[in-house]
Amino acid sequence: MKEILDMINSIEPLDASRDDDIQKHLDNLTKPPGSLGRLEEIAKTFIRASSVYPPKINRKTIFVMAADHGVAAEGVSAFPAEVTPQMVQNFLNGGAAINVLARHTGCETRVVDMGVNADFGDLKSLIDRKVARGTKNIAEGPAMTEDEMIRAMKSGIELAGTAAGEGTDIIGTGDMGIANTTASTAVYCALLGLEPEEITGAGTGLDEEGVRLKTEVIKRALEKNAPYGNPLDVLMKLGGFEIAGLAGLIIGAAKNGLPVVVDGFISGAAAAVAMKICPNVSERLLFAHLSDEKGHKTVLEKLCIKPILDFNMRLGEGTGAALAISVIEAAVKIYNEMATFESAGVSDSVEIAPSV
Amino acid sequence: MKEILDMINSIEPLDASRDDDIQKHLDNLTKPPGSLGRLEEIAKTFIRASSVYPPKINRKTIFVMAADHGVAAEGVSAFPAEVTPQMVQNFLNGGAAINVLARHTGCETRVVDMGVNADFGDLKSLIDRKVARGTKNIAEGPAMTEDEMIRAMKSGIELAGTAAGEGTDIIGTGDMGIANTTASTAVYCALLGLEPEEITGAGTGLDEEGVRLKTEVIKRALEKNAPYGNPLDVLMKLGGFEIAGLAGLIIGAAKNGLPVVVDGFISGAAAAVAMKICPNVSERLLFAHLSDEKGHKTVLEKLCIKPILDFNMRLGEGTGAALAISVIEAAVKIYNEMATFESAGVSDSVEIAPSV
Repeated sequence: MKEILDMINSIEPLDASRDDDIQKHLDNLTKPPGSLGRLEEIAKTFIRASSVYPPKINRKTIFVMAADHGVAAEGVSAFPAEVTPQMVQNFLNGGAAINVLARHTGCETRVVDMGVNADFGDLKSLIDRKVARGTKNIAEGPAMTEDEMIRAMKSGIELAGTAAGEGTDIIGTGDMGIANTTASTAVYCALLGLEPEEITGAGTGLDEEGVRLKTEVIKRALEKNAPYGNPLDVLMKLGGFEIAGLAGLIIGAAKNGLPVVVDGFISGAAAAVAMKICPNVSERLLFAHLSDEKGHKTVLEKLCIKPILDFNMRLGEGTGAALAISVIEAAVKIYNEMATFESAGVSDSVEIAPSV
Repeated sequence: MKEILDMINSIEPLDASRDDDIQKHLDNLTKPPGSLGRLEEIAKTFIRASSVYPPKINRKTIFVMAADHGVAAEGVSAFPAEVTPQMVQNFLNGGAAINVLARHTGCETRVVDMGVNADFGDLKSLIDRKVARGTKNIAEGPAMTEDEMIRAMKSGIELAGTAAGEGTDIIGTGDMGIANTTASTAVYCALLGLEPEEITGAGTGLDEEGVRLKTEVIKRALEKNAPYGNPLDVLMKLGGFEIAGLAGLIIGAAKNGLPVVVDGFISGAAAAVAMKICPNVSERLLFAHLSDEKGHKTVLEKLCIKPILDFNMRLGEGTGAALAISVIEAAVKIYNEMATFESAGVSDSVEIAPSV
């Protein structure tokens, strides 16, 4: 644990000394100042968060972390738990939504078994970081032991370091795990002081009765595991192995000067843990999209986050991250490739003297 | 004129007979039904609008139509009129925002001189459809003659036909023309019954006093040119050559079964004219983004349009269209490339039987 806390404490605030120069360059490009709106903001965020200047986005890597959840036994998902390993196979075969969108946006996909309840044998393309075959049922006690949480987080930290060493310029997060909106909702509640009634949603597609049951299960889990210490205590008691892995990935990326694109509701729970335990991580994150999962809007408002896209998506896997990475890449190219007023011989704006 | 009206009348409502099959296919893909939200809606809209099935988006063409506006003499823009030809040169040199974003999203860019007040000589890469060296000042009378409008629209129709013949799968619209938010605002007011005070905005960056002056100029133009007959009468009296060209492009694309992505505020005025004169065009259009130009939100609500992106952009040129085309391409790839539950051996959702 000390090793993780030391790393967290070593992450410093970003250097703001280049901000004025970045803004000046954006204003010199052949467009009215600020007229590319969020693209300009996104360029600034990425450039500040990245340790590389001039900025570049050549290599883009999305980590899809998968794990099972003991709480699935409570009937909190519209899909059976066997779908977690089935979807891992689908990822490896290239047939899932994340594969399609990652190919479209030129991202590499790394599929990580953080704790799936299945034996995959020796699959070359699967990164095996299995902590256990699923968490324990949070409605009955802690999801994992402290040792399990540390192992999961360390795997994430190590994978971020490897990606940085391989020349990745941006990391996207993704998740798979039947019942992981239940775990994430519980994490948000304990972390941000929200009530399960406020933010519990339909996940993969529960009906009204299903959402009611899921809300009750989350309330039981919150009571059963109280009181909560620091954000890592919340993660350990209510989270999942993929959520802990993603929290580690985010912290490891920050340590390596790699901006991270946080996908949606599940990845957001990992990001919330990382931001709460290490506030300096926050300005290194870009949030991909507003999920259609009920609680996401409330959670993002609470964290003062404005996501990039709003497509009513609620699939996870990193699908929002893949789309958002393409927008971030566009923003960086605007910064790098546009002509300036001077270089293009275009007149700048003028004091207006009406001809009347 | 008869030729254009005949073409408009020959555009039929879309065939809805394939809708159920399209929905069934989307629901068979390995994701909870509807969980890709707007991507699924966008896929459906594109597939319905395109004359090709199975859908494909290989070739993507953005037409950037440029023209000058006599009303610029009233001091309604933060930039001098000479910027129109300067930016045309910038487009041809590849240094403008649209060039960067079109390269990023794999779109071809076609720059069309619809009526720029400059002599470009014999530039190979510029498509010369110049109607005149700018419109007349709408504050003093009609922007163009009926003959000029017909020539501009026919150029757009013809360019869409050529693009279809060359195998383009989707068309994006773009514009350049100092003072063209003034013309567009006037068109929207006359077409949709809005008041200039409601929707006149800062364009390229007017201050409060500038917006007040611009509002007065638009009011004068509306009074001076009243009364208005059909939507083409509005276009002729208040529009611009690029707006008329884009209206023609949209109608020509519809005639050829080519979906069109409408950029922002200026392209939207062309689309509004096309939709009002030819309602069957509407379902063939996708709207790229909500512009930061003040009136766009009101206008889109009035037309019941939900744009794809919301990035506070207000640059025109087709920049929003380029970004949106990439999203539409993603949606079509989801439709074409994802595995089905059956092909991937993934379990579908189940009736939930809680284990309690």
